[in-house]
Amino acid sequence: MTTPLHPDVEALAFLLGEWRGEGRGTYPTIEDFAYREQVTFGHVGKPFVSYTQRTWALDDGRPLHSETGYLRPQPDDRLELVLALPSGQVEMDEGTSRGGHLELTSTLVARTPSAKEVSEIRRVLDVDGDTLRYLVEMAAVGQPRQVHLEAELHRV
Amino acid sequence: MTTPLHPDVEALAFLLGEWRGEGRGTYPTIEDFAYREQVTFGHVGKPFVSYTQRTWALDDGRPLHSETGYLRPQPDDRLELVLALPSGQVEMDEGTSRGGHLELTSTLVARTPSAKEVSEIRRVLDVDGDTLRYLVEMAAVGQPRQVHLEAELHRV
Repeated sequence: MTTPLHPDVEALAFLLGEWRGEGRGTYPTIEDFAYREQVTFGHVGKPFVSYTQRTWALDDGRPLHSETGYLRPQPDDRLELVLALPSGQVEMDEGTSRGGHLELTSTLVARTPSAKEVSEIRRVLDVDGDTLRYLVEMAAVGQPRQVHLEAELHRV
Repeated sequence: MTTPLHPDVEALAFLLGEWRGEGRGTYPTIEDFAYREQVTFGHVGKPFVSYTQRTWALDDGRPLHSETGYLRPQPDDRLELVLALPSGQVEMDEGTSRGGHLELTSTLVARTPSAKEVSEIRRVLDVDGDTLRYLVEMAAVGQPRQVHLEAELHRV
C-alpha cells in the first residue's frame, strides 16, 4: 500500500526516493577528499520529508560523514530543515524551494561540548529529473563561509 | 561482513539493534494517547550510535511521532545526544550511561519559526537484557517539566 502524500509535501515530491552518486570535499584545514554518497528522502503521509545521508571515502570505502533530519515545507515556497550530525552538531536552516531549486541557510548551528565549531552552513540543491546536484558552503573552525562539498547523485 | 565496533561504542553495545513495543503519552494540553513504537540503534564502526525512532497510534495505526539523531559516548560514562524532530525542533542532551541506565537532560532545544515551543527534555532509559524501558519528561508550551512518555520495548 502506498501512503498518500500530504498536500504540503507535493511540492517536494521530486525529491522523494533514493539517490546515489559521488562528490568532492575541500576545506582549508583538511586534505581534499572524494566520496561516494547515498541519500534517501522519505515521507509517511505527514507534512514533512525525512532525510538521511551517508558517505564513504572513494579511495578505501571507509564511512565518512552522515546526517539525518527533516524538511518542513512552509507556505510561499518557504522551507525549514532540522538536522542532527554525528560530529555533534544540530543545524536549523531556512530557505526556499522553487522549480527543483532549493536554497537553505542555517539560522542555528549548535554543538555539544566535544564537537568542532561550525558557525554557518548554506545548502543549494538542484534536481533535474533523475539528477540531483548539491553544493554545501560552510564556515567552521574560524574559517569564513566557503564551498565545502559538491556532489552529483542519480535516482536509483 | 560485520563492521567492528568502535572502542568508544562498546559501552553502549547493549543498545544496538532493533526494538519494538508500546508506550503511553500524556500532557496537560492534549488527550492521553497510546502508541506502537519501533526504535533502531545502529553503528558504522565510528565513535557514535545512530538512533531512529517511529511511533504509530495504537487505535488506528496512523503515524505519530518520529525522531532521529546520534549518541556520542564520551569519557567517564558521559554521553551526548544530538536529535532532529520533524515537529521542527533540534535537541542536544548531555548525561551519563552506567550499567544499562541512561539519563540525558537537554542543554538546548531550539525550534524553527513554525514549530511549537519545547523548553526542556529529560530522557531516562533502562535496558535489562532484551527489554528496554524509557521515560521522557518534557517542559513545553508553557507547562513545567513533567512525564510525557513511558514505553516498554523488546529486542527483535
